[in-house]
Amino acid sequence: MLQMERIGIYPGSFDPPTLGHVDLIERASGLVDRLIVGIGINSQKTPFLDIETRTQALRECTAHLPNVEVEAFTGLLVNWAETKNCRILIRGLRAVSDYDSEFRIAMANRSMAPDIETVFLIARDTYSFLSSSVVREAATLGGNYSQFVPEPVYHRIEKALGRTD
Amino acid sequence: MLQMERIGIYPGSFDPPTLGHVDLIERASGLVDRLIVGIGINSQKTPFLDIETRTQALRECTAHLPNVEVEAFTGLLVNWAETKNCRILIRGLRAVSDYDSEFRIAMANRSMAPDIETVFLIARDTYSFLSSSVVREAATLGGNYSQFVPEPVYHRIEKALGRTD
Amino acid sequence: MLQMERIGIYPGSFDPPTLGHVDLIERASGLVDRLIVGIGINSQKTPFLDIETRTQALRECTAHLPNVEVEAFTGLLVNWAETKNCRILIRGLRAVSDYDSEFRIAMANRSMAPDIETVFLIARDTYSFLSSSVVREAATLGGNYSQFVPEPVYHRIEKALGRTD
Amino acid sequence: MLQMERIGIYPGSFDPPTLGHVDLIERASGLVDRLIVGIGINSQKTPFLDIETRTQALRECTAHLPNVEVEAFTGLLVNWAETKNCRILIRGLRAVSDYDSEFRIAMANRSMAPDIETVFLIARDTYSFLSSSVVREAATLGGNYSQFVPEPVYHRIEKALGRTD
Amino acid sequence: MLQMERIGIYPGSFDPPTLGHVDLIERASGLVDRLIVGIGINSQKTPFLDIETRTQALRECTAHLPNVEVEAFTGLLVNWAETKNCRILIRGLRAVSDYDSEFRIAMANRSMAPDIETVFLIARDTYSFLSSSVVREAATLGGNYSQFVPEPVYHRIEKALGRTD
Amino acid sequence: MLQMERIGIYPGSFDPPTLGHVDLIERASGLVDRLIVGIGINSQKTPFLDIETRTQALRECTAHLPNVEVEAFTGLLVNWAETKNCRILIRGLRAVSDYDSEFRIAMANRSMAPDIETVFLIARDTYSFLSSSVVREAATLGGNYSQFVPEPVYHRIEKALGRTD
Repeated sequence: MLQMERIGIYPGSFDPPTLGHVDLIERASGLVDRLIVGIGINSQKTPFLDIETRTQALRECTAHLPNVEVEAFTGLLVNWAETKNCRILIRGLRAVSDYDSEFRIAMANRSMAPDIETVFLIARDTYSFLSSSVVREAATLGGNYSQFVPEPVYHRIEKALGRTD
Repeated sequence: MLQMERIGIYPGSFDPPTLGHVDLIERASGLVDRLIVGIGINSQKTPFLDIETRTQALRECTAHLPNVEVEAFTGLLVNWAETKNCRILIRGLRAVSDYDSEFRIAMANRSMAPDIETVFLIARDTYSFLSSSVVREAATLGGNYSQFVPEPVYHRIEKALGRTD
Repeated sequence: MLQMERIGIYPGSFDPPTLGHVDLIERASGLVDRLIVGIGINSQKTPFLDIETRTQALRECTAHLPNVEVEAFTGLLVNWAETKNCRILIRGLRAVSDYDSEFRIAMANRSMAPDIETVFLIARDTYSFLSSSVVREAATLGGNYSQFVPEPVYHRIEKALGRTD
Repeated sequence: MLQMERIGIYPGSFDPPTLGHVDLIERASGLVDRLIVGIGINSQKTPFLDIETRTQALRECTAHLPNVEVEAFTGLLVNWAETKNCRILIRGLRAVSDYDSEFRIAMANRSMAPDIETVFLIARDTYSFLSSSVVREAATLGGNYSQFVPEPVYHRIEKALGRTD
Repeated sequence: MLQMERIGIYPGSFDPPTLGHVDLIERASGLVDRLIVGIGINSQKTPFLDIETRTQALRECTAHLPNVEVEAFTGLLVNWAETKNCRILIRGLRAVSDYDSEFRIAMANRSMAPDIETVFLIARDTYSFLSSSVVREAATLGGNYSQFVPEPVYHRIEKALGRTD
Repeated sequence: MLQMERIGIYPGSFDPPTLGHVDLIERASGLVDRLIVGIGINSQKTPFLDIETRTQALRECTAHLPNVEVEAFTGLLVNWAETKNCRILIRGLRAVSDYDSEFRIAMANRSMAPDIETVFLIARDTYSFLSSSVVREAATLGGNYSQFVPEPVYHRIEKALGRTD
């Protein structure tokens, strides 16, 4: 039986990427033949890290995964997924997660694109509270956040906050 | 025994009205003698559809229901309800709903107006993820959202987005 | 316009009835023309109070409400509701409630009997934790539970537990 | 790059199988190369349908899916999965689901078998309330449950309840 | 055995303080030797009541509690807590609460400051829906909110809204 | 100011005790002057480990904590707590916890014993899924559960299951 290539998209804002995101990318990359990390561009919000910085950082963090690509997109996620022949959206669920909001988005996406399946993986225990907004707040207010993000993200945040030379 | 007329209010922003809202109005209209759809005016947010457009659209969508009226209101809901001799507030709960926030509002309303009862109906399965914000996002980003809203709402949104002549 | 009589059923085990149940009956009785409190008979569980005792106690507790009746039933709730020409099921939701289980039941009932609407009221703050099982445990283990149940229930429990003469 | 065969297990009691289960099997079969439907044998509960009947019914319901097998198992799920070289467990999440319990199980499984990933799909809207226990209750109490189960299950339940000849 | 003084911080925005906050302070003050009510200054939001007003109001409301102090702080909570030799953060959980968000914050705080323990108390039934935002909305829209706040807060809000002379 | 001794009770079934329980005891022992681990005896369930075994195991596991005692109790928790002059009940909340049930119990306890405060600590990330029933199931079905329980519990379970000599 001929098997089509399975293409998955892991969408998000990744502003900034966290260790939880990278862990999920590693695990998701084993579930599909090709995984596209899709950075959604939200033109209405001033980002913490600009889109170029996030893209570069995620590429560095996933360089060891041959079937993973990183790309930014605008517009509706499911429309973009269709142009990529992607049938699988991958999202992480945190134990302490906004489960309802994830569910709502997945159901709306299914209604708009019935052929695309959303698949949820569970965040690792140690990252179950971790989110980009936790990092933003800790970094901005002078907290120790180095245990929350991969190194390529850490030094870009420090630079963006003007703390490195 | 003389029975007072039962007047219910179904309050919301309806920005825009969805098929889920209309389904709920239809079902709620059978539970009370007179149902007022109350469109709350929030002067601090720029609306997606203006209040006039939402009122007209909801009137068209409920024209087949003789005991339903549509009206906009400002100020506190329970204060307005009292001026209408309304004792029943009706709200929909979605399976994937912000249940806690609905509950909190209902309890605050009860504390301020003990004679007014909040009554919850469950959204129909197929609308369980549907909300005005899903419609706004899909419409703005170029998604197919015609299956989410009644026709009178659809053409008003298209017009507001400058897509029709 | 001729208006059909609105008949509601408030179903439950009521084993035993609590002050939360009675409060809900009082409020629900104002929403419909006729309210039937339906005590479900579960032949597979040994009850705490027998069905006769629960029926009598609920009748005493609701004697001041002229449009309320108390009746036991067997079999599937929605089947019984149809024989009563009831279109409205009323349930309480506690702030700290098994919301999911209530929702699941309501959706299953709707699937089996689409003409019957489930309507939820919110339990009063002071009863938000209260359930029959809390009463059973407190009563059995010697706790003070008189603030949880109406007097006609209290003395029947004490009698059932052999503490009165 | 040589790609290992992706083997998934969809575990459950399936007592009885519902239309929700079959829908999930169809969708899950597209995500892996080979899907094993694993019926867990619980020796401590009297089943509604015996293990043989459930196995046959699920085989009939999935006969159109060439990469799906049905098999019963005893003991710990992750131990069995390892003997099957399975790295992917698939579970459905219902909008009105016992999300916490699913999560807890998945995390315990990960702790015992770190190489096995649990993947969640979302139940279709129309099945979001549906569970085996809803079917058991409706079938036992004389409700109309034919819209909840596939035909091969329906006639087996009727037979088990002694209603067919 | 020599026992170190137990210092707790009860952090929040308190904009405005509610009866729920004061109740929690009273109960929390019994659990530690010294309780600091920490008003977080968020320089990015225009407050409803300014920081000076909130501090004074909370001091008035807690004047009867000898081991309670009120203080404003900027920056990251756990950093500030460490300068105070505080090992215990106290938070209230409402029955209808954003439980997930409380949990997430507590886990992030633990990750950044492992020696500091977050301890949750449950809000009293009658305050289970109450929050500063409920008060702000009711007060702004002309609702009756005097039952939600202590007197020293009420007259400061009325003054801030220009309703007193 | 004379300070009364603060006595806390950490109640549970502990059938069996897990590493999550022991972690919680360690942290709770720092919050009070004296901590009593209360093992509730439920005469209606056949225990996995008998009460004597659980008591001994917990005493071994807490031998390094000078202000911790282990004791079994029957009857209603709050009644027993009062005989111990205990004003503080301590419970753990898991990220993936039956939060509602914990809340309900705490509120019922407060209603029966208003002077006793329930205080919640959060389970450590790595134990957020862990419960006695996970251990019972893994141990019974032949899973690897040694990472879930302290050594004194592990060898007692193995002995109870007849696997050691």
